[in-house]
Amino acid sequence: MKLQNIKFAVVGGDLRQIKLSNFLARAGHEVRVFGFNGIDFEKNVVLSKTLPDVVADADIVIGPIPCSQDNVTLNTKYYESTILLEDVFKNISKDKIFMAGPITSEIQGIAKRYDFKVVDLLAREELAILNAIPTAEGAIQYAMENSEIMLHGSQCLVLGFGRCGKVLAHKLKGLDAILTVEARNPQDLAYIKSYGYKCLHLHELKDYIGSFDFIFNTVPSLILDREMLKAVKKDCLIIDLASKPGGVDYNSAKELGIKAIAALSLPGKVAPESAAMIIYDTIFNVYSEMGVIL
Amino acid sequence: MKLQNIKFAVVGGDLRQIKLSNFLARAGHEVRVFGFNGIDFEKNVVLSKTLPDVVADADIVIGPIPCSQDNVTLNTKYYESTILLEDVFKNISKDKIFMAGPITSEIQGIAKRYDFKVVDLLAREELAILNAIPTAEGAIQYAMENSEIMLHGSQCLVLGFGRCGKVLAHKLKGLDAILTVEARNPQDLAYIKSYGYKCLHLHELKDYIGSFDFIFNTVPSLILDREMLKAVKKDCLIIDLASKPGGVDYNSAKELGIKAIAALSLPGKVAPESAAMIIYDTIFNVYSEMGVIL
Amino acid sequence: MKLQNIKFAVVGGDLRQIKLSNFLARAGHEVRVFGFNGIDFEKNVVLSKTLPDVVADADIVIGPIPCSQDNVTLNTKYYESTILLEDVFKNISKDKIFMAGPITSEIQGIAKRYDFKVVDLLAREELAILNAIPTAEGAIQYAMENSEIMLHGSQCLVLGFGRCGKVLAHKLKGLDAILTVEARNPQDLAYIKSYGYKCLHLHELKDYIGSFDFIFNTVPSLILDREMLKAVKKDCLIIDLASKPGGVDYNSAKELGIKAIAALSLPGKVAPESAAMIIYDTIFNVYSEMGVIL
Amino acid sequence: MKLQNIKFAVVGGDLRQIKLSNFLARAGHEVRVFGFNGIDFEKNVVLSKTLPDVVADADIVIGPIPCSQDNVTLNTKYYESTILLEDVFKNISKDKIFMAGPITSEIQGIAKRYDFKVVDLLAREELAILNAIPTAEGAIQYAMENSEIMLHGSQCLVLGFGRCGKVLAHKLKGLDAILTVEARNPQDLAYIKSYGYKCLHLHELKDYIGSFDFIFNTVPSLILDREMLKAVKKDCLIIDLASKPGGVDYNSAKELGIKAIAALSLPGKVAPESAAMIIYDTIFNVYSEMGVIL
Repeated sequence: MKLQNIKFAVVGGDLRQIKLSNFLARAGHEVRVFGFNGIDFEKNVVLSKTLPDVVADADIVIGPIPCSQDNVTLNTKYYESTILLEDVFKNISKDKIFMAGPITSEIQGIAKRYDFKVVDLLAREELAILNAIPTAEGAIQYAMENSEIMLHGSQCLVLGFGRCGKVLAHKLKGLDAILTVEARNPQDLAYIKSYGYKCLHLHELKDYIGSFDFIFNTVPSLILDREMLKAVKKDCLIIDLASKPGGVDYNSAKELGIKAIAALSLPGKVAPESAAMIIYDTIFNVYSEMGVIL
Repeated sequence: MKLQNIKFAVVGGDLRQIKLSNFLARAGHEVRVFGFNGIDFEKNVVLSKTLPDVVADADIVIGPIPCSQDNVTLNTKYYESTILLEDVFKNISKDKIFMAGPITSEIQGIAKRYDFKVVDLLAREELAILNAIPTAEGAIQYAMENSEIMLHGSQCLVLGFGRCGKVLAHKLKGLDAILTVEARNPQDLAYIKSYGYKCLHLHELKDYIGSFDFIFNTVPSLILDREMLKAVKKDCLIIDLASKPGGVDYNSAKELGIKAIAALSLPGKVAPESAAMIIYDTIFNVYSEMGVIL
Repeated sequence: MKLQNIKFAVVGGDLRQIKLSNFLARAGHEVRVFGFNGIDFEKNVVLSKTLPDVVADADIVIGPIPCSQDNVTLNTKYYESTILLEDVFKNISKDKIFMAGPITSEIQGIAKRYDFKVVDLLAREELAILNAIPTAEGAIQYAMENSEIMLHGSQCLVLGFGRCGKVLAHKLKGLDAILTVEARNPQDLAYIKSYGYKCLHLHELKDYIGSFDFIFNTVPSLILDREMLKAVKKDCLIIDLASKPGGVDYNSAKELGIKAIAALSLPGKVAPESAAMIIYDTIFNVYSEMGVIL
Repeated sequence: MKLQNIKFAVVGGDLRQIKLSNFLARAGHEVRVFGFNGIDFEKNVVLSKTLPDVVADADIVIGPIPCSQDNVTLNTKYYESTILLEDVFKNISKDKIFMAGPITSEIQGIAKRYDFKVVDLLAREELAILNAIPTAEGAIQYAMENSEIMLHGSQCLVLGFGRCGKVLAHKLKGLDAILTVEARNPQDLAYIKSYGYKCLHLHELKDYIGSFDFIFNTVPSLILDREMLKAVKKDCLIIDLASKPGGVDYNSAKELGIKAIAALSLPGKVAPESAAMIIYDTIFNVYSEMGVIL
């Protein structure tokens, strides 16, 4: 299956969009980029001076992840000026595609004034699943860097058995940690057993939490509140993977002398090239599902 | 958490219900059984001569799995006579519980005339998930018994990544098979990658199926039809875990000289004690969810 | 690296020698066989009527494994008459090679009268290591077949951490058994820890042996004597991989009602094709080490 | 098994000796320490002002690892002055024990003038094996920190299958790297296969080395010389675990633009507490083997 002659525009972003541009060019696509100062792209990537020049002709316009902090300007890590979403959108041709993520209702609102298709890459389940892999590796790296003991043979607890919980549990067991996974519904608990992990029901958590050397939280709610933290071992390391505000009462953790680390956006930080490849794969999944002839 | 003073009736079934009765008695519950001839139960299990004697007083009445072949009589492997569903149901006390599976609409119809609660154990997701464990072990045992090569280092293909596919893939990799898993949606394919297995999209299956030594089917549809079987290696072994009619064109397989085995109801066959324990755990999950005081 | 124009004679043996003959022919070598009645070899394998005809011209003569029960005749599972070692040896040409195993001092004595090289395949460390793989799979198959519980989640004990102990432990953990390995020297115990298994020192064995569902013995000494067996759980399954007389007091086991299975010569039984491939690989390792030009 | 009333002296060393002192005190032993400035030990550890006061009464005197750079003074990371080996040795009582490592012939020479026993902890095989665990974790941490791709799904090569090679291979596979292990003798290659890894013979290395994303060297010889490095991928990361001078031509690597990291003494760096626990376990192994009543 070969996708041919696709014209890409990559506008703004971070290291992942840079690497993504290189991958696209290496695969033989036309790639024009805007919003990157002083970056050496591979030779087939075209750096354009003006936004319209980059966007107008493109079949697919790739934006940053996260797309925007303020719903007005694009996130542009390597650009000294600003790029307005409006300016990008008004240059996209009819029926062409804009892909970025997340696409908030505000961004959706601006886009609606124009006649192109919008794809929220972060709403793609497979991107979220694949991102769980570098997230899990990053969580392991952070745990190794911030501890004086090995993961091998340590008592590890993973809170939650969603995407990140699944992959992280798999890798911790692969490193021979002694692994327990917490969940709250019978199905998840059954799956936890089926992978050979010890399982812990949420309502038992308080009784057992004092026995762990490492706690990895993947649940987006304040599960490690002050009461729970009081039961945690003093030299336990907490790695919190839940997006802000996170799953840890950080003030209490500090007072109680417990090390807790908010580990966010790990794929782009610990494995930008793999993260770019995941975006790359997702783009083509979306594109092929949109019914374009391949 | 301790469940006390529960009165169980176990009526009909196979080796699993026998073992289940023993587990319940060992755990301190009152257990009366009916529909088992010449079976030595553990000493605290009460064998009653009449059905009403067993059922009338019970808090929970356990029936067979599968419950009935004809929607009229219970499945009773160890009983020379027959037991009518109607006769069981009319003796169950008001507000008490009958658990078995599957509960067909016909069985439901009979039960509705009386005033007790019906629970379909096979509709419980966690039972299905936990049953995937002995199913996967059984599939591996059958593969070992029916092949002249090792699983170690062999090319294995698992068709489907549902409950059985997940657990079986995990165990085959644990035995160092070279593992590929087939699926058809991007999410499953992403999970397959996240566990480190090779993945194959359904539409690529035909091109690659000729390279496998073992094929395990978990998909309940005719995926291995005559055309597909023609592409399979002659000395490949197919283990079909899909319930009848199964996922293999068995006539074509026979004609083509390909060994294909329908492996059904494995938990009760290869690990009846574990299968009984899974039913046991599910019964108490259901019971505690029904709001009974624990 | 290609070995060309080797002339093989395969004389006697079991299913493994038959499959070995086919592999050799498939790889393009000349293969003549003797001592197999009513066997359909692949088309390039030459069946000869007389022993001299098969042996005289061969570069490498392959004998059975085990080679002989009585040090006088070859082991010939598929031959209604007998083949004298002497008759084979006297036909082997000067400087050619005879490979089989074990080569006892008596066999060595007969061979010495002639002028060819003798290789004991069973003395090859890599063959013994590779044979540990089908042995471990076979032990797992036997355990599955002879138990009413799953290996998954069961308490498994492996006695000894030599070749078989290492591979078997690896595979049992891969199936999510709860694994303990017994050894007696600090190095083995350290390696057991380094693979993430629980370890047990021989002198603690008696205290803990009562907690296991499966015990796999790989140690060639009577470790499971009457006293030890008394401490074993009644429904424990013992798989004894040690060669005769084995590591179990079988009479006591019977008296005590403990199921103990002597599992011998597993590679040829559970995976004859893989076992043949292991012999095949070893033959060429030996041949290339003997300085023959490749 | 309880060891009682042992009097320990800990003289010099790094973070591991500090933690070791705390472990010993926690386990109920008498512990006196010398050669640590400004360190907060746990309350039962006795800090003495003079060396004789610490050493004279001790049953076991623990020195640093490495013991000495110059064979004259102890390694003392947390001490502003120097401690002469001679001054330690002359204060050790008759028949008592000094444990450190390595014990060079020069150190042995000094010790011989006095009447105590000397144990080289680094000569203990189980310490070396157990140290392979934090070494492997450290190698993985370094690989994660120095790469823009994940280990998951990457092509990894481990050179050598000794203690470090074995544990590192096991962990890399546990993280779902695509793993190849290089070795040169048939036994190691057989073991590599028995663990399900791809194996590569040293003489094939040059042909395949260009396909790896990560290369971990555990062989103490210049295996990655200029010629070999020329065949390595430009964006490959090399982690060299071999002790100095190491297994990489670092000058050539630099010229060729290949990132190569000498990763030495990892246990003390990445997991000092685990490293201390390994020393602790080894001390008691040695002590119990020396025939002391337990």
